[in-house]
Amino acid sequence: MNSVSKTSEWVVRIAELEIHAEHLAAYRALLAEEIAASVANEPGVLTLQAVALKDAPEQVRILEIYQDQQAYERHLKTPHFLAYKSESAAMVKSLRLVPVDPIRMASKLLD
Amino acid sequence: MNSVSKTSEWVVRIAELEIHAEHLAAYRALLAEEIAASVANEPGVLTLQAVALKDAPEQVRILEIYQDQQAYERHLKTPHFLAYKSESAAMVKSLRLVPVDPIRMASKLLD
Repeated sequence: MNSVSKTSEWVVRIAELEIHAEHLAAYRALLAEEIAASVANEPGVLTLQAVALKDAPEQVRILEIYQDQQAYERHLKTPHFLAYKSESAAMVKSLRLVPVDPIRMASKLLD
Repeated sequence: MNSVSKTSEWVVRIAELEIHAEHLAAYRALLAEEIAASVANEPGVLTLQAVALKDAPEQVRILEIYQDQQAYERHLKTPHFLAYKSESAAMVKSLRLVPVDPIRMASKLLD
């Protein structure tokens, strides 16, 4: 891993969301915008990777990595996150946050 | 995304594994080694990010991104993957491969 990160302090989790089918296109656009803004503007937001299940596209999974707990708490107060949260509220049928521990995270992608 | 990738051809999925508890430490070591070798040595293996659920560490999730189907098929024939597959066979209780579509993948981490 590169030098921005100290794995031991990371906050890592998988968000599991179900989106109301009629709002799926709008939700995906909102989420994509929120992810781009967060990773571009917040030094402590290391990774936000969102996917939809091919066989159930209303099922969204997001792998989230924050530098540490403080970075996560700052993220929750940013204008882009607050706008996403409020605009997506009625689109989200359920949200489950699953805390995880990294085993090995290797990538050659950068946004 | 950087220039190594054309999202439209990517093969992206989440592998969901359950590991026999008595083999968990050995399995994690094998997996970490396999991930490091694959991303370092295979140009078409873009991302392998493995985590364990904090509340159920025998539950492992891996986000996998391959450049395209050919890259994935080459990966299956590499010595490091074949060694991992054979050495981990008795450790893995169940394996489910869930095909997914990227919504937005943003990261500032590189291995």
